[in-house]
Amino acid sequence: MLPEAQRDSLEVVLVSPRNPLNIGAAARAMANFGQRRLSVVAPFEPNWREARSAIGATELLVNAVESATLAEAVASCTLVVGTGTLTRRKPEQPVVPLPDLAPLVSRELSRGGRVALIFGSEKHGLTRQDLSYCHLLVEIPTDPLQPSMNLGQAVAVCLYELTRRVESPSSTSFPSVTSAAPSGHLELLAGVIEETMQAAGYSPRAMQPANRHDLRLLLRRLSLSARDNRRILGLFRRILWRLKLVQDSNGKSR
Amino acid sequence: MLPEAQRDSLEVVLVSPRNPLNIGAAARAMANFGQRRLSVVAPFEPNWREARSAIGATELLVNAVESATLAEAVASCTLVVGTGTLTRRKPEQPVVPLPDLAPLVSRELSRGGRVALIFGSEKHGLTRQDLSYCHLLVEIPTDPLQPSMNLGQAVAVCLYELTRRVESPSSTSFPSVTSAAPSGHLELLAGVIEETMQAAGYSPRAMQPANRHDLRLLLRRLSLSARDNRRILGLFRRILWRLKLVQDSNGKSR
Repeated sequence: MLPEAQRDSLEVVLVSPRNPLNIGAAARAMANFGQRRLSVVAPFEPNWREARSAIGATELLVNAVESATLAEAVASCTLVVGTGTLTRRKPEQPVVPLPDLAPLVSRELSRGGRVALIFGSEKHGLTRQDLSYCHLLVEIPTDPLQPSMNLGQAVAVCLYELTRRVESPSSTSFPSVTSAAPSGHLELLAGVIEETMQAAGYSPRAMQPANRHDLRLLLRRLSLSARDNRRILGLFRRILWRLKLVQDSNGKSR
Repeated sequence: MLPEAQRDSLEVVLVSPRNPLNIGAAARAMANFGQRRLSVVAPFEPNWREARSAIGATELLVNAVESATLAEAVASCTLVVGTGTLTRRKPEQPVVPLPDLAPLVSRELSRGGRVALIFGSEKHGLTRQDLSYCHLLVEIPTDPLQPSMNLGQAVAVCLYELTRRVESPSSTSFPSVTSAAPSGHLELLAGVIEETMQAAGYSPRAMQPANRHDLRLLLRRLSLSARDNRRILGLFRRILWRLKLVQDSNGKSR
């Protein structure tokens, strides 16, 4: 299991789960592996907190956070990991086999980051938009003939892997701690850059959704520190302000 | 997953399972990890083969072997491994943590043995008598506060562990190796960003050498790919062009 001090920094996020029994099963697996932060995004059934399958995890369900959007759920997370099988789509982020995920999560946790492990709905998994919030994708090495796992089982397997070999928390390995920018700050930055692109006439209306998607991915690839994020935000705000000033004065002079 | 030749030599044995949904879930997990030999001992419900939870594993359920006793079910096995939490009873066999099980199973399979992985009923786990058929016991490292796992999840976690590192890791984990931007391109980008900062009035003259320095460091921290570098360059060129256009028109209108 994870060191006590790190347990609250790893969260399991279920996006649009349909069957409360699966939510309960996920909660039970979390309790089995010593985890307790569950986040549920746009659940299908309003009474999901009463799932009877959450054996030994009823408190965990009661304390779970419900949010309307994934963006909101992962706003404070510095490493967002999407799960699922990647048979259909070509991934836009690095893909890590599950057996290799633990060191990455452990590094992020030991430098004070927050990690989210995202699971899609039973039917469709994570959508392309969901994936755009992810820094990396993890792949459970399943049989290509039968790749799709039950939600509760997938949560169990991922948490088992992340907690199976937690070394003595030496935590010395990463010296000069640069703290990563949380997802919410990246979104703020993305918003300002997008506005700047539009003000500069760089993003034709028809291209805006595609550009927003690409921008979100780009910002995650850069693994910005919180400080760099602030800095770049400051620069773009200034540029935006200047561009608008110009537009206004042009408007007036016409 | 296990090499094809060894797959039929590992069997999953469920002893006195009560809920067919759990049998189906176990079957599904087996299919996910490329296993197909299921043995069910003295099941509670006679119609367990129809479990709807066996998504992608209906054939596996149909082909499963039902026996009256555990002795019968494991008769041909050379290594019988009991699973469960060992909080209550003092074990009479060697106990192996699940993360250490794979080499033992793999050795047995590669010398032509047959391995059985035994799971007890949902209520009571394996009885003392069941355990007496086991060569060793495996312990899933769960939280002592909540050790008891759901049957289907326990099967999933055990099979994941046994198959997670079998093949040589063939495929490269990162999709299309992104080529990093060469230093010269970073410098070009730095130049354009710097000019933009000045055009936006963001960089007072006294600060320019310090800002240039920080900017250079920042761009290297980001480890930009060549493609991202081109993209960001394009954006800043556009912004710069627009800012200058504005300055010119302001100049003229004054």
